Amino acid sequence: MDTSPLSLARSLLRCPSVTPEEGGALSFIESVLKAAGFEVHRPVFSEPGTPDVENLYARYGTGKPYLLFAGHTDVVPPGEVSRWRHDPFSAEIEDGELYGRGAVDMKGGIACMMAAALGFIRDNPDFSGSIGFLITGDEEGPAINGTVKLLKWAKGRGERFDHCILGEPTNPNQLGDMIKIGRRGSLTGKIVVEGKQGHVAYPHLTDNPIPGMLRLLEGLLREPLDHGTDHFDASNLEVTTVDVGNPASNVIPAEARATFNIRFNDLWTPESLEAEISSRLSEAAGNSVRYTLRMEPTNAIAFLTPPNEFVGFIADAIEAETGFRPKLSTTGGTSDARFIVKDCPVVEFGLVGQTMHQVDERVAVEDLNRLAAIYRKVLNAYFAPNP
Amino acid sequence: MDTSPLSLARSLLRCPSVTPEEGGALSFIESVLKAAGFEVHRPVFSEPGTPDVENLYARYGTGKPYLLFAGHTDVVPPGEVSRWRHDPFSAEIEDGELYGRGAVDMKGGIACMMAAALGFIRDNPDFSGSIGFLITGDEEGPAINGTVKLLKWAKGRGERFDHCILGEPTNPNQLGDMIKIGRRGSLTGKIVVEGKQGHVAYPHLTDNPIPGMLRLLEGLLREPLDHGTDHFDASNLEVTTVDVGNPASNVIPAEARATFNIRFNDLWTPESLEAEISSRLSEAAGNSVRYTLRMEPTNAIAFLTPPNEFVGFIADAIEAETGFRPKLSTTGGTSDARFIVKDCPVVEFGLVGQTMHQVDERVAVEDLNRLAAIYRKVLNAYFAPNP
Repeated sequence: MDTSPLSLARSLLRCPSVTPEEGGALSFIESVLKAAGFEVHRPVFSEPGTPDVENLYARYGTGKPYLLFAGHTDVVPPGEVSRWRHDPFSAEIEDGELYGRGAVDMKGGIACMMAAALGFIRDNPDFSGSIGFLITGDEEGPAINGTVKLLKWAKGRGERFDHCILGEPTNPNQLGDMIKIGRRGSLTGKIVVEGKQGHVAYPHLTDNPIPGMLRLLEGLLREPLDHGTDHFDASNLEVTTVDVGNPASNVIPAEARATFNIRFNDLWTPESLEAEISSRLSEAAGNSVRYTLRMEPTNAIAFLTPPNEFVGFIADAIEAETGFRPKLSTTGGTSDARFIVKDCPVVEFGLVGQTMHQVDERVAVEDLNRLAAIYRKVLNAYFAPNP
Repeated sequence: MDTSPLSLARSLLRCPSVTPEEGGALSFIESVLKAAGFEVHRPVFSEPGTPDVENLYARYGTGKPYLLFAGHTDVVPPGEVSRWRHDPFSAEIEDGELYGRGAVDMKGGIACMMAAALGFIRDNPDFSGSIGFLITGDEEGPAINGTVKLLKWAKGRGERFDHCILGEPTNPNQLGDMIKIGRRGSLTGKIVVEGKQGHVAYPHLTDNPIPGMLRLLEGLLREPLDHGTDHFDASNLEVTTVDVGNPASNVIPAEARATFNIRFNDLWTPESLEAEISSRLSEAAGNSVRYTLRMEPTNAIAFLTPPNEFVGFIADAIEAETGFRPKLSTTGGTSDARFIVKDCPVVEFGLVGQTMHQVDERVAVEDLNRLAAIYRKVLNAYFAPNP
């Protein structure tokens, strides 16, 4: 079997695994890893109201340290197929680039992880640690029957990871640009201001909730939540919608609603943020604005994997391969890393994200080879016998 | 024919003239006025997209001065008939009160005007002025095929009014409480703030329109438009709706919309108000908020009939009948007076408004008699030979 990154990536891209369909992708990984000596499991998770989702967990070795590769084989829909230069599931190569939905997000990354792991095991059959794969089919969907349950399932089996690399496309422009050593958390809240409906000609008989809402939102936005940290941007609050829905311009409405979302750094927990928001609203409201605040439950906490030896392995490998040191970043949206970090330190590094979720998603074949080489160097350093 | 206010009111209430239906009400008025020597016209006005509407114009005499009574026979729907104490179109009397849709708004008022006019003409067959009735069937509806067109039609015939009494229910609590000598105008504007949509995790790639909208609305509301005048309350601006309609809390929206309505006194015209609003928005926006302002066309200007001799006739008549002077007010919503005032000074005085538009709309029979007596005293004073 050809276990080059390109060959593995093409096989994966040909599987139409549009979330939540397995599409043959996990079965392909299972067969390759089994052939290399991995113990492979294929747990399927269910939840009323959501589709059943197939997942994969594989481990080679039983010793420590245990390095886990994490990722997903489900992809977002290809959109209008006719707008693609090549069929999104045909894995065509043109001008040194491999086309297909998932090329960078993140079947390409998984192919590189597999190629690196297979090569390392082949060259070091008796290394003393463990290498694992934790691959879900539910990252682009509701993310309910995927990584969260797979981690719980693994924990139930006694699996204990020491470090994890998540292969999401982290590089904005070129391979090696950026490692994500953390992510901001996400917290959403909803505000309802109550007033009293009535005719605009008789405002003294009414209580317009809109000025009160303006005061509350102004109070929320007045001061920055923080000014960032060494590793994180400042936390950011965005009011995402304000709605009254009153079609009659001669009527003062009864209620105004607003939603806000906060992307927060590790200076905050969801609890401390809620306390801060409550305090700001209470101060802005004074005695005159009647309102309710409801924070939505969140599992998107902020996390940071401090730039330690493990991060150093990855940065060193990147520099050795590309000639420059990556930026250690905590920007961007949330990822499955927010779940994994509860079990072990996690760092994200993968391909270049520019074409992800777009028509003509594609990856340079050269990038596949270099990413596999970087992962291989990480394995070499990670499992090197202590001097 | 019994031309007492009660008898005329009962006949009118029995006509099911739910807007825009004529329901026999105008035909009844026509027959009564014709019998008393009025010249009566029944123009019907049409407009694409709106129902045809019947109207009535009647005049007795050809000389000056010309006093016009104005009003409408259309009524709002009765709502749930089973909740009424008496059928809304049966004109039942109980405990000295006449029940029915339109009892106070404003068939009762029209009955009083008719009774007063018929009595005056009977007692003064050779008076030198003119008495007219301008009655529409489109006040409670779109108000397109009613008073506006009827006035234009009358003008086209060469009719020139000197003064007008509009018989809307002006008294908040008891007959004689309040004359309306003016009305505030109404002006509606819509603001759209443009932003740039994107993911909340990447705010630097987006432009959230909501903070800009907050600034604009805050700029609109910061300072009162004025502090009122001797006859008018302060002009009042209400933001009636703010809408973004963004269901996704991880998305920064592209656009925010708001509507406001201003009830303004005679310190303002729609044009001067629009200039003030534009200036406030422009100052609040600075260079950073991209927005558009659109003012809706309005024919609801503010007007005032200064407390002159004509207002004095009415106030004197009320005091003679009730023992106290009415309040001269300019509060409340808009009325057809805003159209009439372009042709002649207009004052509004009618029954007690408490039950208007409600289930069990009703009027005290005593109030009908007293209002007719007040109108009669006004006619006596208005047409009294100069000393």
